[in-house]
Amino acid sequence: MSERLRIDGLQYCRWSREIFEQMRAARLDAVHVTAAYWESARELMANIGQWHRHFEAHADLIMPVRSAADIDRARQSQRTGIILGLQNCSPIEDSIDLVSVFKQLDVHIMQLSYNNQSLLCSGYLESEDAGLSRFGRSVIREMNRVGMIVDTSHTAERSTLDAIACSTRPTVISHANPQSASATERNKSERVMRALAESGGLMGFSCYPFHLPNGSKTTLPEFTDMVARAVDVMGVEHLAIGTDLCQDQPVEVLTWMRNGNWAKTLDYGEGSAEQPHWPEPLSWLGGVSEFGNIETGLEARGFSRTEVDALMGGNWRGYLEDALKPKSD
Amino acid sequence: MSERLRIDGLQYCRWSREIFEQMRAARLDAVHVTAAYWESARELMANIGQWHRHFEAHADLIMPVRSAADIDRARQSQRTGIILGLQNCSPIEDSIDLVSVFKQLDVHIMQLSYNNQSLLCSGYLESEDAGLSRFGRSVIREMNRVGMIVDTSHTAERSTLDAIACSTRPTVISHANPQSASATERNKSERVMRALAESGGLMGFSCYPFHLPNGSKTTLPEFTDMVARAVDVMGVEHLAIGTDLCQDQPVEVLTWMRNGNWAKTLDYGEGSAEQPHWPEPLSWLGGVSEFGNIETGLEARGFSRTEVDALMGGNWRGYLEDALKPKSD
Repeated sequence: MSERLRIDGLQYCRWSREIFEQMRAARLDAVHVTAAYWESARELMANIGQWHRHFEAHADLIMPVRSAADIDRARQSQRTGIILGLQNCSPIEDSIDLVSVFKQLDVHIMQLSYNNQSLLCSGYLESEDAGLSRFGRSVIREMNRVGMIVDTSHTAERSTLDAIACSTRPTVISHANPQSASATERNKSERVMRALAESGGLMGFSCYPFHLPNGSKTTLPEFTDMVARAVDVMGVEHLAIGTDLCQDQPVEVLTWMRNGNWAKTLDYGEGSAEQPHWPEPLSWLGGVSEFGNIETGLEARGFSRTEVDALMGGNWRGYLEDALKPKSD
Repeated sequence: MSERLRIDGLQYCRWSREIFEQMRAARLDAVHVTAAYWESARELMANIGQWHRHFEAHADLIMPVRSAADIDRARQSQRTGIILGLQNCSPIEDSIDLVSVFKQLDVHIMQLSYNNQSLLCSGYLESEDAGLSRFGRSVIREMNRVGMIVDTSHTAERSTLDAIACSTRPTVISHANPQSASATERNKSERVMRALAESGGLMGFSCYPFHLPNGSKTTLPEFTDMVARAVDVMGVEHLAIGTDLCQDQPVEVLTWMRNGNWAKTLDYGEGSAEQPHWPEPLSWLGGVSEFGNIETGLEARGFSRTEVDALMGGNWRGYLEDALKPKSD
């Protein structure tokens, strides 16, 4: 049997040769990596410049992904394809024109919001969610045109349902879990999960302890139970993995992810004043190199070979085949 | 006889559907257009966004050029290929990383300086020319690597000679004339012309009246005489056209080109307080649509069919075949 395709739908590690080597150790064919949260257009350009340096210095381990076929090329050359994405719309500032500019720079996925209200819609930590803004609808139309994927992982419920309805192309929740597994607003309701599946979209299971039923103590069987229940709701073809691994990041980065430039009093996001740190890692996913343990868990849970293929990477690959293309192609 | 390839090595018109239609009327297969002078990185992104709008709205007339083969595709589909370039290095700010970022955005040519000293070298209006800076050498190395063409049209003599020597790939003077035709520092000495030719580079003849022997009154035979004398110095294979047409631009744009954000007292560049305006256009090149008159003039001057082919576009096409490619290709 040929090795299974493996795609991780979200990571924000402290990128280094060591991490890229661990991606290879885990036989990851592609990873969606976060290139910005709160950065301005200019700051994202600097981050992309940094990725150009990575692609040059570590060309033996990683390569940029522009189309789904690039994932196959990465796989064939035993490298990991890097799909750049944004966890927030800050880098487009207030300009619709920057959608196609960043698409040309291989930014292929954009969350409509992080935790707060954005120029496009509402994040899940807001008390009010007014749905998509006028700019939000305009940007989704442009993202649909150029082939930039709409991601609503951190987006509030009404805004997420609005986005699914507004987008003419299937959207994703790259990294989140069902609220039935862990009742945080950061996770997704059955209503959202069903709407996403009906629209042809994809949800990646998060391995971030705050999104899991027993936090850092969540066992692999508990994780795969959650997968099985989600499959009953959405169908296996709409589910995948998005670990949300933030390996080697110092706590300052976590604080910045939560606070950006918007807060003068500390915001703890999913943490608290008592627990302001990164959560303890899962025993079965200490880092990128252990990505394959998810596969072992799914097999042990009794998923069929075809189902494990789909969940571990096949669904991402299938989805990306069309999603990365400009509309006119 | 099939129609001759026509490439203009520099224009900075006030872009509009009318101008693009005139490019087609002139059967221009490709034009190097200026995307920025004094703009910051962020401002260039906005200009590139504006070009994305043009490419979308006028896809029947123009298309972006990423490789020399795109010029052939433009020609075959009766469109004009647009090659984006910069007349100054302002948009890379102080970051080497932005060279590859802008290359990915199809910025394929960059002048090392406009009229003033830049972070890379000296412009021709400075009284002192210290040659290439440390950053200048670093940027040329990176431009060579990614396939961004070094242009020294407005660059001072020593800096130009330094750049020709430093660059491992042939450079261009996209739009300037021999000093023997008009003794302005903006034009090029025989020393520069010979060094450029020896390095395999290309110079495009400017039709901007301030660069011509009799200003706006320069006749087409005077222009083609200048061409003939330059051919004797450099060889026909190193010469081409770069009209420097700035059609439909208001005088405010000229003032901004000259003054950017650097001067509080008006700088008149090649003009003067008495003549602060755009020069009167040439009688035989009132605008983009009359580009073909140059061809008529060259034929009348007695250049062979092969020579006219080379000058009108063949040399640009041949040069761009390699010049636009990243080094590793």
